[in-house]
Amino acid sequence: MGRTGVWLLGARGSVATTAVLGAFAVREGSAAPTGCVTARPEFEGAGLPGLEELVFGGHDLSDVRLCKTAERLARTGVLPAHLPGAFADRLGEVEGALRPGVVAEGGRVTRADVDRLERNLREFAEREGLERTVVVDLTSTETRLEAHPEQEGPEALEAALDSGGARIPASSAYAYAALRAGCAFVEFTPNTGPRLPALRALAEREGLPWAGCDGKTGETLVKSALAPMFAARALRVRSWSSVNLLGGGDGETLADPEHAESKTDSKARGLEHMLGQPVEGPLHIDFVPDLGDAKTAWDHVSFEGFLGARMTLQFTWAGQDSALAAPLVLDLARLAALALGRGTTGPVTALGFFFKDPADSDVHGLVEQWQALTAWSVPEGGGT
Amino acid sequence: MGRTGVWLLGARGSVATTAVLGAFAVREGSAAPTGCVTARPEFEGAGLPGLEELVFGGHDLSDVRLCKTAERLARTGVLPAHLPGAFADRLGEVEGALRPGVVAEGGRVTRADVDRLERNLREFAEREGLERTVVVDLTSTETRLEAHPEQEGPEALEAALDSGGARIPASSAYAYAALRAGCAFVEFTPNTGPRLPALRALAEREGLPWAGCDGKTGETLVKSALAPMFAARALRVRSWSSVNLLGGGDGETLADPEHAESKTDSKARGLEHMLGQPVEGPLHIDFVPDLGDAKTAWDHVSFEGFLGARMTLQFTWAGQDSALAAPLVLDLARLAALALGRGTTGPVTALGFFFKDPADSDVHGLVEQWQALTAWSVPEGGGT
Amino acid sequence: MGRTGVWLLGARGSVATTAVLGAFAVREGSAAPTGCVTARPEFEGAGLPGLEELVFGGHDLSDVRLCKTAERLARTGVLPAHLPGAFADRLGEVEGALRPGVVAEGGRVTRADVDRLERNLREFAEREGLERTVVVDLTSTETRLEAHPEQEGPEALEAALDSGGARIPASSAYAYAALRAGCAFVEFTPNTGPRLPALRALAEREGLPWAGCDGKTGETLVKSALAPMFAARALRVRSWSSVNLLGGGDGETLADPEHAESKTDSKARGLEHMLGQPVEGPLHIDFVPDLGDAKTAWDHVSFEGFLGARMTLQFTWAGQDSALAAPLVLDLARLAALALGRGTTGPVTALGFFFKDPADSDVHGLVEQWQALTAWSVPEGGGT
Amino acid sequence: MGRTGVWLLGARGSVATTAVLGAFAVREGSAAPTGCVTARPEFEGAGLPGLEELVFGGHDLSDVRLCKTAERLARTGVLPAHLPGAFADRLGEVEGALRPGVVAEGGRVTRADVDRLERNLREFAEREGLERTVVVDLTSTETRLEAHPEQEGPEALEAALDSGGARIPASSAYAYAALRAGCAFVEFTPNTGPRLPALRALAEREGLPWAGCDGKTGETLVKSALAPMFAARALRVRSWSSVNLLGGGDGETLADPEHAESKTDSKARGLEHMLGQPVEGPLHIDFVPDLGDAKTAWDHVSFEGFLGARMTLQFTWAGQDSALAAPLVLDLARLAALALGRGTTGPVTALGFFFKDPADSDVHGLVEQWQALTAWSVPEGGGT
Repeated sequence: MGRTGVWLLGARGSVATTAVLGAFAVREGSAAPTGCVTARPEFEGAGLPGLEELVFGGHDLSDVRLCKTAERLARTGVLPAHLPGAFADRLGEVEGALRPGVVAEGGRVTRADVDRLERNLREFAEREGLERTVVVDLTSTETRLEAHPEQEGPEALEAALDSGGARIPASSAYAYAALRAGCAFVEFTPNTGPRLPALRALAEREGLPWAGCDGKTGETLVKSALAPMFAARALRVRSWSSVNLLGGGDGETLADPEHAESKTDSKARGLEHMLGQPVEGPLHIDFVPDLGDAKTAWDHVSFEGFLGARMTLQFTWAGQDSALAAPLVLDLARLAALALGRGTTGPVTALGFFFKDPADSDVHGLVEQWQALTAWSVPEGGGT
Repeated sequence: MGRTGVWLLGARGSVATTAVLGAFAVREGSAAPTGCVTARPEFEGAGLPGLEELVFGGHDLSDVRLCKTAERLARTGVLPAHLPGAFADRLGEVEGALRPGVVAEGGRVTRADVDRLERNLREFAEREGLERTVVVDLTSTETRLEAHPEQEGPEALEAALDSGGARIPASSAYAYAALRAGCAFVEFTPNTGPRLPALRALAEREGLPWAGCDGKTGETLVKSALAPMFAARALRVRSWSSVNLLGGGDGETLADPEHAESKTDSKARGLEHMLGQPVEGPLHIDFVPDLGDAKTAWDHVSFEGFLGARMTLQFTWAGQDSALAAPLVLDLARLAALALGRGTTGPVTALGFFFKDPADSDVHGLVEQWQALTAWSVPEGGGT
Repeated sequence: MGRTGVWLLGARGSVATTAVLGAFAVREGSAAPTGCVTARPEFEGAGLPGLEELVFGGHDLSDVRLCKTAERLARTGVLPAHLPGAFADRLGEVEGALRPGVVAEGGRVTRADVDRLERNLREFAEREGLERTVVVDLTSTETRLEAHPEQEGPEALEAALDSGGARIPASSAYAYAALRAGCAFVEFTPNTGPRLPALRALAEREGLPWAGCDGKTGETLVKSALAPMFAARALRVRSWSSVNLLGGGDGETLADPEHAESKTDSKARGLEHMLGQPVEGPLHIDFVPDLGDAKTAWDHVSFEGFLGARMTLQFTWAGQDSALAAPLVLDLARLAALALGRGTTGPVTALGFFFKDPADSDVHGLVEQWQALTAWSVPEGGGT
Repeated sequence: MGRTGVWLLGARGSVATTAVLGAFAVREGSAAPTGCVTARPEFEGAGLPGLEELVFGGHDLSDVRLCKTAERLARTGVLPAHLPGAFADRLGEVEGALRPGVVAEGGRVTRADVDRLERNLREFAEREGLERTVVVDLTSTETRLEAHPEQEGPEALEAALDSGGARIPASSAYAYAALRAGCAFVEFTPNTGPRLPALRALAEREGLPWAGCDGKTGETLVKSALAPMFAARALRVRSWSSVNLLGGGDGETLADPEHAESKTDSKARGLEHMLGQPVEGPLHIDFVPDLGDAKTAWDHVSFEGFLGARMTLQFTWAGQDSALAAPLVLDLARLAALALGRGTTGPVTALGFFFKDPADSDVHGLVEQWQALTAWSVPEGGGT
């Protein structure tokens, strides 16, 4: 499919570093593509860019060097011990393609900010001779957005950018720049990103695709496999209680209740859709630093069967955040590149399989999402 | 659809008693059809017989009266306390339609045995003015079958029945009688029933449908929801260990390793199909009398993600056997009646949704089975 | 030991009703004393009052009749179905001994309030010819106490009661009245009760015993068995996360974060003592109405072994609140009567076995508490 | 206390290698003594040999070099990555003190065998200038022992050794040699070791101490903390079901049902003692190679409270075998050296804290065992 840029927002973080190093390892044959959905045979005829065609760059607020992050991840067992050393040179090249991120100072983003971000993307494409670029948001969870008129339409947004700054979050500033630079955008976090009405309209106008939101990597993934079971069997779920224990950076951000709120919301939304009824029960996200990159979730489902019989199902998921998220980042980069190549416009609902809060879709059941994804990727009658 | 006979093998057991009492309660509006799949809106246009059109009878080796079983179930909390009293008269009518079951004495079934069973079915249909009858096997798990020539074809089977008896299990004797009497047959246990080559051929010749085998009511149900998740996400399952703690009659039978073997086999078969790879790990079925009608299962799944990261998922299912199985018995009676009405012949693979070991099918994933079931029940373009 | 009054605060609630009915059932031989610690052989020589010597009465704000509560508990499976009917007469007698409770209107308790409570206790003792009375607090969890000078000493307290009312919670008003009436007091909830400095001093002056606080009936019980294991084995607990899902009335009260705070505190305190180190991890108490009288707790313990190896222990406790608390109420009534008979003064630390937050004691390990309890009950060299 | 030999049977295995490397790391201050019971302050005055006084040697049937085992353990995450390199020299010295183990060929052990083992021990002590030596059995689980007359007394045993060989297992041959060489013996496995009547008598005659059997490192440890809780609270345990999933070498041996039998027995014995009643429920030990050094256990306890209320407790223990067992090996070596120094004779029941099947003791509750251990180690009134 030709050289494809993968521009990672939060490029120096654990997920991004794991994605980049993993891509190197898989394409050189030293690791299997475990966890990479697009490596399954169903996607063979889809015409996706090969891993060897992906070129990495990105924005980050931190200036800790990539190789340092990689070493830390190897030391704590998140990455295989030999990996950072084996691909030190490659990592150095990616290091050269990283640029400083942006902060919405005083809650505002200026014209200078977005111009700089756009320029970074255009220079990346030119320097690397890319045919297309996908921007993937892997930054930390933002606080809940307050509404402002300039978020409602492209004109108002442009006007605000030109006069004192627009009250949009950093994730939306990145999305704006991506769309201006002709890139596809993947919102892998619960952040607002391209979901502002102004940006949705911009994507339509520019004829660009985007996907999101909030990667489905753990407890919600299991929920989306189990909830359709209760529905299909006409079992009445009475309560569904969930606890998520997170270490690592994301856990810390989410410990702040203001940040947690947007994540909790996007997690809760799907359950009611899958069950066809509202359901009570708490949903906790707790920061437990001791756990590091590990994510442990416990769910307790109380349900009712024939003649009122009371039963329960509980599960404990002990996952590794980076190992679950990173291959999906590569999948989404490849699939969004496909959408870009096909000229798809607006939210790509067929990518809902990957998200807790699938944009413009009420399909949350995993198998249905899988069927939609494969049907879209390789339409009947052949590939691209 | 007209009066439909539901002839239960093991009619005095917990599952059968719960199914019968539950059907009464639901059709009189005193209980919701929770757990009844065919009560979902998807089946509205299917032309299934209504619960009020079902007429119950059956075979059983025990002579404990139905009302006694019902009282025991109410006392131990399996059934609501008021239910046996509320439907005492109705239960009495069903009592009148029960006939003694059959045992394969010395491992052989005689012509007299099968003739009597067939006569019981024909008399039931005539007496009750039935349009069609579905026979559902709910008897205890049999020991593993030893092969004999008379199991291979109808002629050999008939000859053996006429001369000293055929070496077939009781479940197959029931299935033979059902097919001779023009009934549909549902094998809800792991027993051989209609799966002998001789009986398969007989079903074809008579143009009759059958379904099976081994109702998917608990741990395997959850497995069939979770295994496709790992497959779709390209996560490599390394081991899947399962423990089932069963009280009640079925548990006791399965504690005998010879009986357990056939159940274990039918449980294990599906996992490899769903995961697309063989997977190690024990599968235990234990009899813990203290648990009564409760079934508790623990599954431990060890799996691998990107770059070899090791993770686990474990779940505990605490179910009530009768409350899970009974509504499926009603569903299968209604659906098999539909197949009989449509003139379907042989194993109805679209009913695989209900079984651990779906006859003539390799589809084990729950959602795929659901889609096949609903498509078959209400074909596009309308109902029956 | 002679007739012993058991005066229950919150006498119309689930725990009190279960305790009363259970005492009747056990003493008439129709139920085993399962869950009754003092029925163990270790207490045989202690000279405790027999169950048949206990006489019940109490305060409650509700006016729902005891038999109604009992019927509701039987209907929802908390009590055996036949129990309310079997002891209807006895329940009627207890009904006659119930009196209205007290509320701290505007946060203040008046002299008239405490006088009336004291009179209720004295009349009960006289009418029933009691040798001694134990008052047990089973009321709902109160909000966190704000400090006021009149809580600091008996004189200030008396003065405030006489002039406009004392700023003490209802639980402390009950404790005041109990001490004035010469009764022992058991604080079975996390409420303040006798812990105000003014009341501690009053108990000393009157030479009366009290015990508390907050009955250890579920998750904390398991914690107090497991935490000493980690300590004895020198395993380093890194995080201990706890989730409690409660239905029923107590759950509802605790859902209010202001109420929850005091309960959470008393739960957290013990862990650090048992482990000998502070330990991180959330502690949630959630109200899930669907669960009724059931209490489900999940604990996740992350710990470290030799050479930094990371391991986990998790447990799920599925308990029934009333069935766990009620027998302890009977135990504490009997043991507090013993203390009263012996002339013990102030907090009885030997009863710490029963509490999450043992008064004046840092011993939280269950076995150590057990040893202290039995040594106190039957001192070496013989009983009372 | 002076130089103390620690002679490990199965010295090239995972547990032994971890113990040796860990002892080096802890005594040089590069690792904390996490999991080392004797590092707790309670043992300060006991006069135990310091870790720096321990000198390691041992027998093994394998000839894989120690450093190779260490590297494998580091590679699979059982040991910290840097450890084998950091102590390569020290490991080399231990390598030089290893000798070939013994097999009971044709089920018989000869005089030549035991003489050679004894000689190995004596030469080790002389070469290293040891004051005393403790032999610790860490070999694989043996098949169940068949009784033979020569196991009954020292004379018969000696006679059999001299004439064609004695029918005793290898573990008992090692124990015989140890006792002959004046060493203390610790049976850390479920093997017979010193428990033959002939060897018990020999230990008495020689005035030597021994301890055992079967290190309590995981699921049984938790059981011994939880079972006393149910007993103290008078809760009736109705069933206790246990499943152990083991990878690694021990798991493989135990997968053979003949080997498993002896381990299962020693695990089951304690529960009845702690609960004061027999209790039903399966106990499985399964080999799941995928799990490596990890041991996962699930226990399901069904119990009854007041008035027959049914409740459950379940736990999942996810441990690392070597990290749990290795520090106990060091503890037992130090404590057995203390017993040897004190002239203790026969089974040291105070060491029951460490074992699933404590020799000559019915005390299984963990806290009681802990109290016995500390009281023995530092008798009141001072240390050694």
